[in-house]
Amino acid sequence: MKKIEQRFLTIQKEIFDVYSKMELSKNTDIIQDSWKRPEGGGGKTCVIQNGNIFDNSAVNFSSIYGSKLPKSALGNSKVKSTRYGFQAMGVSVICHPKNPNIPTSHMNIRLFCILNKNKQIKDWWIGGGYDLTPYVIYKDDINNWHSQAKANLDRFDKSFYKSFSKTCNEYFYIPHRNERRGVGGIFFDNKQYKSIDSSINFLESIAKTYLSSYKELISNRKKETFTKEDKQFQEIRRGRYVEFNLVNDRGTAFGLQSNGRISSILSSLPLNASWVYKKTKSMEAREKKLIKILNKDWNV
Amino acid sequence: MKKIEQRFLTIQKEIFDVYSKMELSKNTDIIQDSWKRPEGGGGKTCVIQNGNIFDNSAVNFSSIYGSKLPKSALGNSKVKSTRYGFQAMGVSVICHPKNPNIPTSHMNIRLFCILNKNKQIKDWWIGGGYDLTPYVIYKDDINNWHSQAKANLDRFDKSFYKSFSKTCNEYFYIPHRNERRGVGGIFFDNKQYKSIDSSINFLESIAKTYLSSYKELISNRKKETFTKEDKQFQEIRRGRYVEFNLVNDRGTAFGLQSNGRISSILSSLPLNASWVYKKTKSMEAREKKLIKILNKDWNV
Repeated sequence: MKKIEQRFLTIQKEIFDVYSKMELSKNTDIIQDSWKRPEGGGGKTCVIQNGNIFDNSAVNFSSIYGSKLPKSALGNSKVKSTRYGFQAMGVSVICHPKNPNIPTSHMNIRLFCILNKNKQIKDWWIGGGYDLTPYVIYKDDINNWHSQAKANLDRFDKSFYKSFSKTCNEYFYIPHRNERRGVGGIFFDNKQYKSIDSSINFLESIAKTYLSSYKELISNRKKETFTKEDKQFQEIRRGRYVEFNLVNDRGTAFGLQSNGRISSILSSLPLNASWVYKKTKSMEAREKKLIKILNKDWNV
Repeated sequence: MKKIEQRFLTIQKEIFDVYSKMELSKNTDIIQDSWKRPEGGGGKTCVIQNGNIFDNSAVNFSSIYGSKLPKSALGNSKVKSTRYGFQAMGVSVICHPKNPNIPTSHMNIRLFCILNKNKQIKDWWIGGGYDLTPYVIYKDDINNWHSQAKANLDRFDKSFYKSFSKTCNEYFYIPHRNERRGVGGIFFDNKQYKSIDSSINFLESIAKTYLSSYKELISNRKKETFTKEDKQFQEIRRGRYVEFNLVNDRGTAFGLQSNGRISSILSSLPLNASWVYKKTKSMEAREKKLIKILNKDWNV
């Protein structure tokens, strides 16, 4: 297990190093906190705040073990009980860029193990994916995001992209708004890709593809200028992000209910968000146009 | 029923008139929207936004009827079924003032009726209350808020204040933060105060006491100056308000799940809220001090 943890930690470091290096300002806070979970395990939370590129960004690693786990944590898996213990580890990334021309991105990779009497792995599965939430639409950027996801997945299994892309659209959906959170990407759960080792290779490739796609996107759009109205629009749309994360996201709900490390769980929330009962006509039109794009299937 | 609806509408008008008159600026949006619910009933949503006093404020009336209602809507009541129909009506108020020296306030009064075969009232109860969420502590203001609530309730029943104040503290609690949302007030549900008519009188007295207490509080504090840091602190604390409303509030959850009018339900959210992973030392100290005050019992 230590070896696998190390591989996740390496992925975390690689991503956080890239993002930290983008921030050259002295006023940017670069924070790294290690923490322990009283019931077993712990994690490392790496955060950038008040940056030039990121209003806030979090790259989190956690590896927790124990014997009790709410049923909700098991998702759709066939496992009925974790009486002999479980171990769960993963890396989660969230980026809320300052410039509204750069979309918000989210990535997660995880391994879940059920142990037997002798504390050996009895059953295991992987899950994860990544998705993109734009505020200003650049169709080429979105198509690249999807094509690169597909190109990587195709190396493993030609059927993955279609299925993972659909799952992503279904998962990142806000029912009370009848809106998707963003333009999608890929998402999957309860998967085994050959052996555990091959599965971790698979997760690594996903993390690397995410990182290179998002880096490209940032460098494409970071020079775009934006107005105060663009920023206001971003904050209103970030309100939707908050709604999804607090109302609909199973991961967040599980974290809040299971005595997780609150500051790490909620590091996914944006620096600021806004709610406006009645928007200006131009803001309304802009939102309507955006939602149409969000609710469209981007599968490539 | 029309007569009772009219009494709720009168309360709504009285409160919204008072708040609207406080806003003298031309740039303030004063909005009144009437809406219908496809399944039966409707409401009137009155909103102030971009005011001098209020960043945003909503005074909402709704009266809905139908035959299907999720069990969750029935709370702790003994009613098992609404097969012959129900009618629910009420007024909800939320105020997010601009000046952080003025606390956020919330008030709700409601009547719930279960109908029989002949569409007559078979069972009914009332619920409601009000609570206060300060960002800057003025102990006298908080004591007045509670004393005035108690003085009014004592006219009806000397046991009410103690019980309603306790229920309020229990309800407006954010488990994942181990914090109360504010300094409390009163809250109750599944109550009958003599007849329906007497119960509506009782609700009216609660709404009037809320209004006069909050008016006093606004006039006491609206001249206080505030800094950019005060405003930032208010936005961070408004983040907690958003967390409570989206994660913990049963009313909001029910509204979102039951195809309610989303813009009215979420008019309780503040104009803006902020989340910061690592606060400055002074902000940390300020928050610690505030939370101590929030988690204290203010019963008078």
